Amino acid sequence: MHFYEKLDAATQAANSLVCVGLDTDPAKIPAHLGTGTEAVVAFNRAIIEATGDLVQSYKLNLAFYESMGAAGHEVVRQTLDAIPARVVTIGDAKRGDIGNTSLMYAKAMFEDFGFDATTVAPYMGFDSVEPFLRHEERGVFVLALTSNKGSRDFQYLEVEGEPLYKHVVRTLVKWNEKQNIGLVVGATHPSELEEIRGMVGEMPLLIPGLGAQGGDVELSVRAGTTAGGLRGVYNSSRGIIFASSGEDFADSARNAALALRDQINQYRTTA
Amino acid sequence: MHFYEKLDAATQAANSLVCVGLDTDPAKIPAHLGTGTEAVVAFNRAIIEATGDLVQSYKLNLAFYESMGAAGHEVVRQTLDAIPARVVTIGDAKRGDIGNTSLMYAKAMFEDFGFDATTVAPYMGFDSVEPFLRHEERGVFVLALTSNKGSRDFQYLEVEGEPLYKHVVRTLVKWNEKQNIGLVVGATHPSELEEIRGMVGEMPLLIPGLGAQGGDVELSVRAGTTAGGLRGVYNSSRGIIFASSGEDFADSARNAALALRDQINQYRTTA
Repeated sequence: MHFYEKLDAATQAANSLVCVGLDTDPAKIPAHLGTGTEAVVAFNRAIIEATGDLVQSYKLNLAFYESMGAAGHEVVRQTLDAIPARVVTIGDAKRGDIGNTSLMYAKAMFEDFGFDATTVAPYMGFDSVEPFLRHEERGVFVLALTSNKGSRDFQYLEVEGEPLYKHVVRTLVKWNEKQNIGLVVGATHPSELEEIRGMVGEMPLLIPGLGAQGGDVELSVRAGTTAGGLRGVYNSSRGIIFASSGEDFADSARNAALALRDQINQYRTTA
Repeated sequence: MHFYEKLDAATQAANSLVCVGLDTDPAKIPAHLGTGTEAVVAFNRAIIEATGDLVQSYKLNLAFYESMGAAGHEVVRQTLDAIPARVVTIGDAKRGDIGNTSLMYAKAMFEDFGFDATTVAPYMGFDSVEPFLRHEERGVFVLALTSNKGSRDFQYLEVEGEPLYKHVVRTLVKWNEKQNIGLVVGATHPSELEEIRGMVGEMPLLIPGLGAQGGDVELSVRAGTTAGGLRGVYNSSRGIIFASSGEDFADSARNAALALRDQINQYRTTA
């Protein structure tokens, strides 16, 4: 199934735009689960079991798994195995390199791990993004305007009368011949998010920055979704998976995911 | 030892600015070595044994190892174990993410793998680069002007009368309080390389794009080194490690590395 279709189907099945970020820091796992990579797998499985019916997608931040060494690779695999097939999986890796190297990164993300989508950095240009786009059924979320404070350092530099990130947005719209590109736009920039939604039509937007980073739900949902209330991927990581550090962590994660889903749906128009 | 010092010492010990890129594509390994990750380790070890006395540094392109799955992690470790302590090791990963995530990437590159240096993408700004800089003894090569065709897409956009990459260069010079930043500047842009050397003083430049990508050795050496003939890291990957696909691959790699070293030294001023 084409990525946009899978994303819409997953959104409708769970009536949800929530993307739970499995940024599983081993140091923050509840003590009763023990330590080591088995504890991380047990934690992720419990979170997935508790939230699977409430979410559109899960996003795995690869940094957290790479920092576990070789075993982290197997943790990613076992986590992906636990995710229901209906739910979208996003490998958040922000890769991008010269063509022959991006080819290998695309293979690792889409063929070896089998993610439905991944994130890519734009700075190196078309031939660094294109190898990902060859996987026509998969989604490629390119960084446009990120949620962090450092987004001010380069993304707002003025280029021909408008900020750099808008050039990136326009360029990516042009490159979207296969209709498998999405953009990353932080919830911490709601007015820019609204402008970007106006520029990209129905393109999916991955919107991090809710929760711990302080993005506003109402503003970012009104700004970021399509007229039909689709194509927004609203990520919250720490705010959901570490809602409690006790034995009730999975129930607490479920409650947090449910609250976020309902809060988002309150502001989401549906066709 | 501080990264700049280690780089200079490695340069002087081998009288070399050559960085061999271990972009080991398993599909291109000589047939007599067999297949699988053991063959990759055997290949890398043979290349290192044949070239170790001729090079300043080895650069491992992580994409090639990630594409091997979980076993790739162990291949990186075993390859690093085979590199003489004197030689600089660069993990070419081009990571960069929000602060808490870059922290994990920096841990993976510097603490778990133990690379002397890594590459980082600049688009997400200061808080995405800073966690790498905290490792004061390690080197952080930030993408400025890349060697690929796609460098034309964003890096040359005009910002306040000059190309974006120059803003990136100036900004990185400002961020270099701990004297552990370097820049990536492709050998395929020799006149820009000369300008950048003029802007950054003694900062190390990682210069890919010789060999398969067509960068000119004379121009890029004259443009990219310091007055003392240091601080250039001239990378060649496919041109050295796949110089022959026969049983003589290691000898051929040695000959190619020796030829590149001597060609570079011919144009390199030495104090």
